[in-house]
Amino acid sequence: MNDYAVIGKPLPKLDALGKSTGETQFLSDLRLPGMLSGKVLRSPLPHARLVRLDTTAAARLPGVRAVITAADTPQEKFSFMPALADKHMLAIDRVRFVGDEVAAVAAVDDATAEHAIELIKVDFEELPNVLDPEAAMAPDAVRVHDGGSNVAWEIHQEFGDVERGFAEADEIFEDRYETSRVCHCCLETQTVIAQAQRGGRIELWASTQAPHTLKSEVERLLKLPEGSVRVYHPPIGGSFGNRLVVDMKSPIAAILSRLSGKPVKIVNTRTEEFETARTRYPYIVTMKTGVKRDGRIVARATKVIADNGAYNDKGQATVSAAGSSLAALYNVPNLRYDGCVVYTHKQPGTGFRGFGNPQLTFAGESQLDMIAEKLGIDPLEIRLRNANASDTTTTFGAPLSSCPMSECLKIAAEKIGWNRRQSLPPNRGIGLATMLHTGSGSRHYGYNSASAGLTVTEDGKVTLISSVCDVGQGAYTVMAQIVSEILGVALEDIRVIGNDTDLTPFDLGAWGSRTTWVNGHAARDAAQRARDQLAGVLAGLLEAAPEDLAFANQRIFVRGAPNTGLSFAEAMNHVYKKRGQPLSVTGTFIDELAPECKDWSTATPTLATACQAVEVEVDAESGQIRLVKAVAVHDLGQAINPLAAEGQVEGALAQGIGYALYEELLMDNGRALNPDFVDYKIPTFLDMPKPQVVLYAEPDSTGPFGAKGIGEPGLVPTAPAIANAIYQATGVRLHAVPITPERLFMAMQTKRA
Amino acid sequence: MNDYAVIGKPLPKLDALGKSTGETQFLSDLRLPGMLSGKVLRSPLPHARLVRLDTTAAARLPGVRAVITAADTPQEKFSFMPALADKHMLAIDRVRFVGDEVAAVAAVDDATAEHAIELIKVDFEELPNVLDPEAAMAPDAVRVHDGGSNVAWEIHQEFGDVERGFAEADEIFEDRYETSRVCHCCLETQTVIAQAQRGGRIELWASTQAPHTLKSEVERLLKLPEGSVRVYHPPIGGSFGNRLVVDMKSPIAAILSRLSGKPVKIVNTRTEEFETARTRYPYIVTMKTGVKRDGRIVARATKVIADNGAYNDKGQATVSAAGSSLAALYNVPNLRYDGCVVYTHKQPGTGFRGFGNPQLTFAGESQLDMIAEKLGIDPLEIRLRNANASDTTTTFGAPLSSCPMSECLKIAAEKIGWNRRQSLPPNRGIGLATMLHTGSGSRHYGYNSASAGLTVTEDGKVTLISSVCDVGQGAYTVMAQIVSEILGVALEDIRVIGNDTDLTPFDLGAWGSRTTWVNGHAARDAAQRARDQLAGVLAGLLEAAPEDLAFANQRIFVRGAPNTGLSFAEAMNHVYKKRGQPLSVTGTFIDELAPECKDWSTATPTLATACQAVEVEVDAESGQIRLVKAVAVHDLGQAINPLAAEGQVEGALAQGIGYALYEELLMDNGRALNPDFVDYKIPTFLDMPKPQVVLYAEPDSTGPFGAKGIGEPGLVPTAPAIANAIYQATGVRLHAVPITPERLFMAMQTKRA
Repeated sequence: MNDYAVIGKPLPKLDALGKSTGETQFLSDLRLPGMLSGKVLRSPLPHARLVRLDTTAAARLPGVRAVITAADTPQEKFSFMPALADKHMLAIDRVRFVGDEVAAVAAVDDATAEHAIELIKVDFEELPNVLDPEAAMAPDAVRVHDGGSNVAWEIHQEFGDVERGFAEADEIFEDRYETSRVCHCCLETQTVIAQAQRGGRIELWASTQAPHTLKSEVERLLKLPEGSVRVYHPPIGGSFGNRLVVDMKSPIAAILSRLSGKPVKIVNTRTEEFETARTRYPYIVTMKTGVKRDGRIVARATKVIADNGAYNDKGQATVSAAGSSLAALYNVPNLRYDGCVVYTHKQPGTGFRGFGNPQLTFAGESQLDMIAEKLGIDPLEIRLRNANASDTTTTFGAPLSSCPMSECLKIAAEKIGWNRRQSLPPNRGIGLATMLHTGSGSRHYGYNSASAGLTVTEDGKVTLISSVCDVGQGAYTVMAQIVSEILGVALEDIRVIGNDTDLTPFDLGAWGSRTTWVNGHAARDAAQRARDQLAGVLAGLLEAAPEDLAFANQRIFVRGAPNTGLSFAEAMNHVYKKRGQPLSVTGTFIDELAPECKDWSTATPTLATACQAVEVEVDAESGQIRLVKAVAVHDLGQAINPLAAEGQVEGALAQGIGYALYEELLMDNGRALNPDFVDYKIPTFLDMPKPQVVLYAEPDSTGPFGAKGIGEPGLVPTAPAIANAIYQATGVRLHAVPITPERLFMAMQTKRA
Repeated sequence: MNDYAVIGKPLPKLDALGKSTGETQFLSDLRLPGMLSGKVLRSPLPHARLVRLDTTAAARLPGVRAVITAADTPQEKFSFMPALADKHMLAIDRVRFVGDEVAAVAAVDDATAEHAIELIKVDFEELPNVLDPEAAMAPDAVRVHDGGSNVAWEIHQEFGDVERGFAEADEIFEDRYETSRVCHCCLETQTVIAQAQRGGRIELWASTQAPHTLKSEVERLLKLPEGSVRVYHPPIGGSFGNRLVVDMKSPIAAILSRLSGKPVKIVNTRTEEFETARTRYPYIVTMKTGVKRDGRIVARATKVIADNGAYNDKGQATVSAAGSSLAALYNVPNLRYDGCVVYTHKQPGTGFRGFGNPQLTFAGESQLDMIAEKLGIDPLEIRLRNANASDTTTTFGAPLSSCPMSECLKIAAEKIGWNRRQSLPPNRGIGLATMLHTGSGSRHYGYNSASAGLTVTEDGKVTLISSVCDVGQGAYTVMAQIVSEILGVALEDIRVIGNDTDLTPFDLGAWGSRTTWVNGHAARDAAQRARDQLAGVLAGLLEAAPEDLAFANQRIFVRGAPNTGLSFAEAMNHVYKKRGQPLSVTGTFIDELAPECKDWSTATPTLATACQAVEVEVDAESGQIRLVKAVAVHDLGQAINPLAAEGQVEGALAQGIGYALYEELLMDNGRALNPDFVDYKIPTFLDMPKPQVVLYAEPDSTGPFGAKGIGEPGLVPTAPAIANAIYQATGVRLHAVPITPERLFMAMQTKRA
């Protein structure tokens, strides 16, 4: 273990006090002078032609300040990938899902805006729809968008010789898995405030994890020159990938503000949030795996059909990224991956913590237990035999700088009591699952770099200007710890400032478990430069060479002589007041491989592994499932803040449990049946045991202080671990999540019959 | 002339559109959620003992959230110079001027807060007072503060041998001058919002020109650890030195906020602003000048008694700084300066544009005309004979890097039509006056440096994070022009961000005409570093050495071949998206002499000179004075933005005209008689001719692009120029400002009699 002062310490997040006392002002709390309420008229039908749209009465209603339809917008198409753009901000002639944006109003208050929405006369001519992705792939299927097929995008990758691999296999398994449509369930719904300035610029206060992306996409949608939009991102109540969406409310609010001359706020109702805020992509996964008798996987061919919903967002990206994570998971010499994203007349999907990986890991790790059973190998042992290891290279050529998968498996087995597995009471089961996921973002976008400004103030405090989005995960705290470690200042004396795209350098945003790795490097570089500069100024005063100065405990002193030197505050006072000098620097991290990244082999600087193990008890009469114990062992390189990292894992685990057992947005003819927290159940404290989180914290050679990201992995292996445990408890294996009591009960009945 | 693209161009200020359309949100416009109204109970007497103070009824009033007296405050004493601290934020047992703070309340609205103030029962026992500074110097005078004398501070400087100088003089003149108490008259009154956070920090939104100073002084007053206060400074409606004051409303609002748990806003009423917001120090100046028959000044001894009012603020600093400006004005070999600052039971003074120099220049430049007349020398000629010149050294050893005083004199004479002077119609007069003033701040504080962060964004825009306070003078625009010149980007593509002490590096603030010089250096360094870095990245692409690349017209190209290369936006796109690199730098300016500054000889990096000339017409029957023509010739080194610089001069000139002719806060027993804009007259458009402003813009060797500051000089020589013109028109010389028609009429009557 390294002997760090702050790195690796379980410190409360810097924003903990404000959050826990209610002092924090969230985006929802923000009100600007003269602010109007904006509301959106949405399609009630999954597919229809817009026959008539009459806003006259709405516009005449006293208190209404602006009413817009597509005619008032630039009619630019949007998608996350510009090449796949297919979504107008307001429907032009057709609506393609229940919730599709048709018109919008701004009025003096919510009630007036709602009334105005009711006064908009709109006639729809319902059209035939296609709701099932496999049906949508049929040649004669109704087209969601004109021209071509409903397959929005596809990918085909092969490494090694898959057919030869299958030929050499002793056993071949082929199974189909289906995953459900789940919602991000942010407790604060999507919110945006737009303020159009007379000079032409637009200010947006938005729920976003990727403010710079939002900025440039809104500029493009509004056909504004680059640099016209400024995005502020105050604290928000949840993101989980959902706030990567460039929601149409942002450009809509901007236009309403420009027309009304006032700031306009649009907030999703909870129903709108469930029906339109985008969901995790449901995948249909067909997995064919060839193994040797000893359990070694020699070939795997995976097919994915992702339900895109009506418009493109990150379907393409999740199918690709998850494919590479699955391909890297085990040491398999021959791999094929065929994925596609298919339009349906439903709410579009988007990225969601895990980014496709929970879907594929559910398939792969469920199947691996089936393989183990067939081969008579212990599920733990079969994973150890196939596990990847540190300092190796994946089948597709990516270096694994660190991969303690075997270690995580063994720890999880020990903590869950794997050796009890054969002597459990009836209706009990223990299962486990592993995963591999990026711990450093993705280079797919040509830019995976960061910079940060750092000023040490005259009173010995530190300001770090960083692009990190603190969406509640503790990113500011992690940056502050890195700075604190290097400069020896107290954590509470470091202020991280960001939240404004005019202020912060370009950044890809908080996703892909990249923040600690990428922005942490920049923060570290900035702190080191400040330290070097400070040592240079103080060397004479302390009669030592700059390199012999130590920075610790809020003091600067000659290394080995902590009684020498001066306090950090005194030192800064000396620098400013006695030397008349400021101390400001810029730190930079350049991921030089990012622009070169052409395929999976360089897409990810480093990956993180994990193993989760659970014990369940199933009520044989009702199918009720009780989670008795949950262990999550997570590799994260050097933990910067174990407390925050455990929080990440615990929160993700809850979502993983929801994914495994409870959550599904049910639909009838494209309309959500359960768009509220009464009928859409997410786990509460009562539904989960206090999980045992173990951080496997061995430094990785690529990360700042050896750190890797931990934002997403916590839910990736949860569902298959639970499914595997349920199988042991019941002998029943479901190939779809969520494994509700009802479904389990039916399957148990079938098995008994 | 240098061939600049942006420097030296008369460009509209970046904030002009927002200001002129009413879009700009000033501090007064700001409302925070749950914000309370704060009001201050003030002394109605100039000197009294606090016998009883009962807040019970006020505290019981529904809607009142906090009531405080001195007992609720840390009772720390405040002054601008900590060694001279003498002011409690709320009076403990005595009040010392009409307006002294006694108690304060916070309530749900203004009316409730005002009512609560009325309900506070307070009994005063009036004490004898002293209102005249000379009377206050008597040994038996009532003491404003216990112990010692009423002389709060004094300075004694001598250079050369003054007595020998007087002995060698052919003529000796000794005169007494008095200047009035004038108010800054900001159109937005002093405003503060404080929000106490649960973690202990205080956020202040304040009218301030020196946010970092405000921050540390409020920390000291509240006995909080350094770094506890964060100051935001939104656009404000006027400053002029007044917003350098650390007004007691800031710590009072902070305490009210802490007690109430809500943000508290306190706004001066216009009456409070006149009675308590501090004024220019009235000076009594006794000037003894020895001259040779040819007009050369050989010795000068100046005595200043400054009326401090009841508490210290910047009396000491103005008396010292103005003394050095006067001492540098002409090439006088023997100089003595004796200044003191004397307590009286009146509203305290503070810094005001010119910082003591208008007072002393009124004395010196009035007397010089008297000397010229006595010696039979033309007033222009006597100044040319005594003028300082570039590349010389003042009597007290300060280098004059540039001093085009003779040039300014000649231009002013030509523009006003000096040769008409002997043939003017009756009751007309032409007068002129010169001045020397810092164009680069002051090093007296050990720190005269600056830093700035600069990011070039992925879309080719530039963000400059600078500590400059844009108080309406165009500081942001000047910084942007410097950056634009170096990087070749359009002015509107540069965003200057500041306004927050957590965000910006330490800075002394916007005063002493220092912003362009000090912060301009830092901005220039930042832009140059960005350019160097960019040239390094692009050299290969453009197949040229980095030093051969030119940056102009929003393009980067090989020098001499403007058709080569690429647009700046394309270049940045290349850097970010193709090279995967960010472009962020830090620029620094270190004024290495600042910490060494021990006396006047190094106090000012560079000085600016000016000459103003006016023509007046006096109504012989009524004493009414009409300003016929006004010429202002100002040295400012290289003008960065002549339009903004002219605006500075025009605005200051209006204040100078008010100082000369109209403005005086009249007092009776320590109470202001005219605390409103009806009875306290400031010049309007109707009172001033369109001034002819000439910028003498020769680069200075010390400044960024050769620039010097121009914030203050515009009003320094105005009053004596007008007084000298009135003398020519009437034969009457008043030794005090303002020269009101009433006073002039009385003096003309006396002269006739």
